[in-house]
Amino acid sequence: MKKKKNESSVTEKRKKVLAGLENFGMKLYDQMEEGVFPWIKMPSRSIENIFYSQEVRQYILGDKTVRRTSRNIRHIRPLTRLVWAARFVHELTQHRKTSTLRDVYYSAQAYDMTFKDQPESNNIITDLETVVGLSREDFNVFPEERSAIFGDLTIEYTVPGYEGRQLNLTSHPDGMMIGPALTSANFVKTGADMVIAIEKGGLFTRFIEEAVHKKFNALLVLTAGQAPRATRHFIHRLNKELDLPVHIFTDGDPWGMHIAMVIISGSANAAHLRELTTPDATWSGMWATDIVDYKLPSDPLTNIDIKRLHELQRDPRYKGKLWQREVKKFLKIKKKAEQEAFSRYGLTYIVDEYLPAKLEETS
Amino acid sequence: MKKKKNESSVTEKRKKVLAGLENFGMKLYDQMEEGVFPWIKMPSRSIENIFYSQEVRQYILGDKTVRRTSRNIRHIRPLTRLVWAARFVHELTQHRKTSTLRDVYYSAQAYDMTFKDQPESNNIITDLETVVGLSREDFNVFPEERSAIFGDLTIEYTVPGYEGRQLNLTSHPDGMMIGPALTSANFVKTGADMVIAIEKGGLFTRFIEEAVHKKFNALLVLTAGQAPRATRHFIHRLNKELDLPVHIFTDGDPWGMHIAMVIISGSANAAHLRELTTPDATWSGMWATDIVDYKLPSDPLTNIDIKRLHELQRDPRYKGKLWQREVKKFLKIKKKAEQEAFSRYGLTYIVDEYLPAKLEETS
Repeated sequence: MKKKKNESSVTEKRKKVLAGLENFGMKLYDQMEEGVFPWIKMPSRSIENIFYSQEVRQYILGDKTVRRTSRNIRHIRPLTRLVWAARFVHELTQHRKTSTLRDVYYSAQAYDMTFKDQPESNNIITDLETVVGLSREDFNVFPEERSAIFGDLTIEYTVPGYEGRQLNLTSHPDGMMIGPALTSANFVKTGADMVIAIEKGGLFTRFIEEAVHKKFNALLVLTAGQAPRATRHFIHRLNKELDLPVHIFTDGDPWGMHIAMVIISGSANAAHLRELTTPDATWSGMWATDIVDYKLPSDPLTNIDIKRLHELQRDPRYKGKLWQREVKKFLKIKKKAEQEAFSRYGLTYIVDEYLPAKLEETS
Repeated sequence: MKKKKNESSVTEKRKKVLAGLENFGMKLYDQMEEGVFPWIKMPSRSIENIFYSQEVRQYILGDKTVRRTSRNIRHIRPLTRLVWAARFVHELTQHRKTSTLRDVYYSAQAYDMTFKDQPESNNIITDLETVVGLSREDFNVFPEERSAIFGDLTIEYTVPGYEGRQLNLTSHPDGMMIGPALTSANFVKTGADMVIAIEKGGLFTRFIEEAVHKKFNALLVLTAGQAPRATRHFIHRLNKELDLPVHIFTDGDPWGMHIAMVIISGSANAAHLRELTTPDATWSGMWATDIVDYKLPSDPLTNIDIKRLHELQRDPRYKGKLWQREVKKFLKIKKKAEQEAFSRYGLTYIVDEYLPAKLEETS
């Protein structure tokens, strides 16, 4: 059994969040004390300031900054909202309550702080992420969607009412939801040697039934389609804190490919964050070449699939050899296949044959 | 603490499934022994044979039947497929493996039993449900989607590797996934007095954080939008086996309303089944009248919403007073609201004020 690296990483994170928010507030107070109109400077999130970094292997923000000052009447509205958002999430974090982007939107109304629409309030939260340099999940603003995990990892909760309680994530064989409680838990110990992330619920259940977690000493993560940010962050933690390699299995089509890519290299929207990516994770299948090699039942690519593949071909995240090769192969064979297509060879073929072969190939 | 009603309801169900499938097979063998071309008769699932029954308060099939005989060359294909499907799910059930509709589609190809498309193979599984009188979840064919539960219910697993193991469903404060293992578990004991089903993940988490399960002695079920069939069946079991009243909370719009209705009265597609409905469950909100009474932030109804409301108005499941009143009210105020709209009054208002008021009103 490995020992977790950092006993209290989560409590420290909470302190860091509160300190970051308070620091932001104090700056404004200081400015006012000095008789200056409060203002802030933050990295610009406009497209011309987003670059793909080969070094950190994800999108990052460039050097351009934007200034918002209460001296400018057009800035007062967004600046005030940003301050309100900081106050709101400070309260959430302090009371250890969680919330959603949707709640933030409606909660503002209690303060006569009506946002024009949901995108506007989402945008303010992203601004706040940029200013404080932390992600909204750190502020206890969680996504609606839930994914799941199963395997030999013992965690210790930090949420109120469960502090200090430990649970092994094999306790419930349908999988444990990855929500605020799990995301904020500390890792105690694990017997696992790797993480296997899976796109589809049916396959996640199959892997548990076929004891993939035992046979391959793996933690199984269900991404349930595009992985929610909290899940991407959780995979990042499994990789960094527990040193576990991460293998991602998706459908064999441009959309599955991109599910893997977003876990690995993140999205342009989150260029201001570093905790959502796992650059060392590997996309282990299903590749276009697998469709050919395993003679899988397949469907023809649609025009939308083909258009998407051409986009991916130009995407800086797809520069690597594997990605370019597979994009080309998809375009050549003009076919796609789902993970369940392996059932063509019997329900356990994917576990008995395909999985070990791919893990060997991509390790 | 109440005691569960039926110690081994689930094991008995499995025996019943296997017996039902074997019985179907034996009939065909007997026919052949007698020198008769194998044939079957089953209730027709065509629209003209689906009726809403006030008595059982759900859609049911009428008396029309269809015959499929191997004497008729056009019947051989569907009949053979039905037999194959029965064999396939018999094997699943026997080996206690689970599967999805998608797996069934692909698995057929291993037997050169290619289905034209997914709807065709889904349809054969529904035929099999009709013939055997059990639902596909009983045959271990589960949906992809997963919902969740949280609260004081101790269950005992029956799935391989976990037989006899008990777990209390407050063990993980993000909620326990409702998958094959939970669905097939026996109920051991509960301290709960009611079930509260919730449409949205964010609110489910809020309810757990605000200890609704303790304050109202409730089991909390996340439907995650339209409840998967396995979840509807699970709610049915909580209601029947544990005598727990069920309250359903959804968004205040025609779609939320219908999420509640499908849990209560089921769908026309499942008119041949009885275990997916909970006719005594109540839709406790969010009603159109709540939008007015609580002065909630709202959005205008779209044309699609309005069209849907007119459909619901004519739907036989919507004959009840509450439903008719609310459909009319929606059409009158031309507004809809989401559950999160209560955040307008602070994050805990929904738990402190709205929930107790509605539970009292609809109990």
